[in-house]
Amino acid sequence: MRILSGIRPTGKVHIGHYVGVFENWLNLQENHETFYFVADWHALTTHYEDTSMLKGYTYDLLKTMIAVGLDKSVLFVQSAVKEHAELMLLFSMIVPLSWLERVPTYKELKQQLANKDLSNAGFLLYPVLQAADILIYKAEGVPVGEDQVYHIELTREIARRFNYIFKKQVFPEPKELLSKVPKLPGTDGRKMSKSYGNIIPLITNEQDLSKMVLPMITDPARKRRTDPGNPEVCPVWEYHKAFGTADIPEEKQWIFEGCTQAKIGCVDCKKLLLKHMVEKLQPIWERYEKITNDDVMETVERGNKRASEIAQRTMEEVREAVGIMY
Amino acid sequence: MRILSGIRPTGKVHIGHYVGVFENWLNLQENHETFYFVADWHALTTHYEDTSMLKGYTYDLLKTMIAVGLDKSVLFVQSAVKEHAELMLLFSMIVPLSWLERVPTYKELKQQLANKDLSNAGFLLYPVLQAADILIYKAEGVPVGEDQVYHIELTREIARRFNYIFKKQVFPEPKELLSKVPKLPGTDGRKMSKSYGNIIPLITNEQDLSKMVLPMITDPARKRRTDPGNPEVCPVWEYHKAFGTADIPEEKQWIFEGCTQAKIGCVDCKKLLLKHMVEKLQPIWERYEKITNDDVMETVERGNKRASEIAQRTMEEVREAVGIMY
Repeated sequence: MRILSGIRPTGKVHIGHYVGVFENWLNLQENHETFYFVADWHALTTHYEDTSMLKGYTYDLLKTMIAVGLDKSVLFVQSAVKEHAELMLLFSMIVPLSWLERVPTYKELKQQLANKDLSNAGFLLYPVLQAADILIYKAEGVPVGEDQVYHIELTREIARRFNYIFKKQVFPEPKELLSKVPKLPGTDGRKMSKSYGNIIPLITNEQDLSKMVLPMITDPARKRRTDPGNPEVCPVWEYHKAFGTADIPEEKQWIFEGCTQAKIGCVDCKKLLLKHMVEKLQPIWERYEKITNDDVMETVERGNKRASEIAQRTMEEVREAVGIMY
Repeated sequence: MRILSGIRPTGKVHIGHYVGVFENWLNLQENHETFYFVADWHALTTHYEDTSMLKGYTYDLLKTMIAVGLDKSVLFVQSAVKEHAELMLLFSMIVPLSWLERVPTYKELKQQLANKDLSNAGFLLYPVLQAADILIYKAEGVPVGEDQVYHIELTREIARRFNYIFKKQVFPEPKELLSKVPKLPGTDGRKMSKSYGNIIPLITNEQDLSKMVLPMITDPARKRRTDPGNPEVCPVWEYHKAFGTADIPEEKQWIFEGCTQAKIGCVDCKKLLLKHMVEKLQPIWERYEKITNDDVMETVERGNKRASEIAQRTMEEVREAVGIMY
């Protein structure tokens, strides 16, 4: 199956990206033809006002994706494949505005980010560009979170409408591949967010990581060492699940008994987490350090080329179906 | 001054295009650097449902533009210069939706063409693509009709906003060049329109032209040969003005006296018109006949290449200003 997914370069890569996105992508690349891209045009829909970091974030995402081992996939940058823009333009001709105004994330995000001026045309067109991103590669599967399911449904509707209007089966209908990975909370237990300052960056080192993990907020009911706690409501336990402790019966038992019977302190529990995190992340940090600028550029240029080839082929079919001169 | 204008390939070229558009373009190309393009992507905004004629209309427009003598200008096809789509995408990120919803032609056309499904995203984005068309060449003047003035105003606003947000003077602000040529009515006196069947095609021959001109509707008050008429309310007089009779004092007098005093019949008047039309159009018809497919393709490919060079240079500046990787 051909699989495609993208990530927006709107900030530093954090541990939530690794657990929620990259681990899933790594699994998929083992058995599928996978295309992963940095969606820098998409980043502009919400971050057009300050683009000073855009290129840096894009580059660092690519480097990080290589460091985590995603370079078995085709890694590319959206803005390097101009055909995405052409296909979006053509799709915009056949997509009713009402389809876009109905997108649940449109109204939601608009409210959430009310302090930003989001009433731009590009923000409304976001799902059309996304459909172009997916359909230009004729991807069959798109790994997404719950909040993106409607976008994939819309992508299928656009594919159907294009095939119907231009009387040619150019596009297959992609399926969403729902990943069940829970979102990691920030160090304060709230949603991980740059504006809360509660993020753990993916690329760091043991010393800095321990400074972020050890003071993490735990079960608020466990005020003192002698109070019993409940892992089910503790952000640290979420991390244990993401970093494998939960899969080791003795460790799971040690934590559950220790916490609920106040036999261990939160710092003991966090030290175990830290050990598992370092085990998993140390190799990534080491690879990241060794990756040169040439490595990054070679990988991404190879990916851009491969992506462009496919995109160009699809656009030839599209132009033929639309009946346009070029 | 660099001048740019476009025409949509949505039907056969008619005499109204010649009088209203091409004559003006011909004048401008004498003293300016002129770029004229066939706006085939724009044609899709309203004609996406049946594109069977799109390529044919595009080709015939190019051939006709060469036949009328516009090949001193850079003639190109919009869809051949993909950078227009990329710039539209980037502009969409900074253009507030409210600017687009306010466009007077948006609501008007939507009502006029109520039988078509025009609520597509592309129709709303029309002015953004138009701004990209103009600004990508840093055109300073855009010949337009009254109904397009707001679009040029919007183009200036988009240029200003881009320069302001990305802190670089990439785009100049283009001026509209209002052409004062009145619109030619159709053979029945109503607006010239394919759906009324009252169109005179530009490329025809003397015999067919006479079959269209001689039965033209005249001053409705002049029912019989002996009734006096009034050229000021007669569609045929509009044509006389467009084809030069009005500039020849003796002929003007002959018509005014003849008509208002019932000394000449409408057929006499139309025969004089026919003579002037043939004088002006015969050379175009002859050139049209002699133009080969190779001539058309050579001219347009040279034009596409020249346009692409400029568009690519502008996009390099744009990407640099936006701060995007590619």
